[in-house]
Amino acid sequence: MEALERKILECGTVAPGNVLKVNSFLNHQLDVAFLCEMGKEFHRLFEKEGVNKILTIEASGIGIACLTAQYFGCNVVFAKKSRSSNISNDLYTAKSYSYTHGTANDVIVSKIFLNPGDRVLIIDDFLAHGSALLALIDIVEQAGATVVGAGIAIEKAYQDGGRIVREKGYRVESLARVASMSVEEGVKFVRDEAL
Amino acid sequence: MEALERKILECGTVAPGNVLKVNSFLNHQLDVAFLCEMGKEFHRLFEKEGVNKILTIEASGIGIACLTAQYFGCNVVFAKKSRSSNISNDLYTAKSYSYTHGTANDVIVSKIFLNPGDRVLIIDDFLAHGSALLALIDIVEQAGATVVGAGIAIEKAYQDGGRIVREKGYRVESLARVASMSVEEGVKFVRDEAL
Repeated sequence: MEALERKILECGTVAPGNVLKVNSFLNHQLDVAFLCEMGKEFHRLFEKEGVNKILTIEASGIGIACLTAQYFGCNVVFAKKSRSSNISNDLYTAKSYSYTHGTANDVIVSKIFLNPGDRVLIIDDFLAHGSALLALIDIVEQAGATVVGAGIAIEKAYQDGGRIVREKGYRVESLARVASMSVEEGVKFVRDEAL
Repeated sequence: MEALERKILECGTVAPGNVLKVNSFLNHQLDVAFLCEMGKEFHRLFEKEGVNKILTIEASGIGIACLTAQYFGCNVVFAKKSRSSNISNDLYTAKSYSYTHGTANDVIVSKIFLNPGDRVLIIDDFLAHGSALLALIDIVEQAGATVVGAGIAIEKAYQDGGRIVREKGYRVESLARVASMSVEEGVKFVRDEAL
């Protein structure tokens, strides 16, 4: 999605430690009109898949998941990273490791919100090592539901998450694929012809 | 908003400890079409206030904030509860205590996303003791911006947060106001005539 690549070049910055900061539109401030355009693109890509539920993970996946869900006419379930007092005890759980936060999390979804027969599109803002995405896939399959694919805003294609998930046979559509980034040279993208 | 009261009666449950569980449409699974209706109602209530930014707090405020922001044509900023490696060091912070999770949090917003001149609508899913809302108000005012009011999905009117915030002079619009709830008797609402 060229518009997202342009947005990353215009608004994103690379911080030391090769952290891509897109706080101004995707992670902290949310550019709602732009996220709607991304939602329309996810819908275009997956509209023939009979999606009846979108699964994401708190916190920064929630905005884009909700805005995308409008185009599918479906609900969103967001997986939680901690067990709070207002969640039931009947849960699917999977392990995920956040390299951004340096923490291991249980990823949690109440069983009543995923059912056999559900056709689930997983939406998330980033795909890097794939740990969160693999945990979400695991949870959908524990429920006996179908993963129709994953819609990712930004894939760090130089890390191995995308390859691992695709090799398992899942469809992954990333709206921008970062080939490399550095403080000195900025962000470079994988272009379609190189896929 | 009568539709929200009906939704709470139909889909909500009161768990021991007087926890109102609305996981099926507001807190874990998000009923996107219904949240859009709530967003339209917030827009109707605040449309004359020149809102140019919506502020909420992760995680469960994000969905309703994004869907509401579409009707205002504005962006969302969500306050964070922990400092991650992809947030800058130039931050507004305020203290909040979560009675649900039993934890004290720093509420954090990057300074660049709130500016003097901003007219900020605060959106959140619940108002009970008011700790999170007061922290968000504090942050908006640290930035020299204007709080035009707070749009809350469900206010626990038997707790003191709403009274405290209104007595400070802020406009608080809650789409449903719970007068009492218990496992035995269910949920009862404050009706308009009793406000």
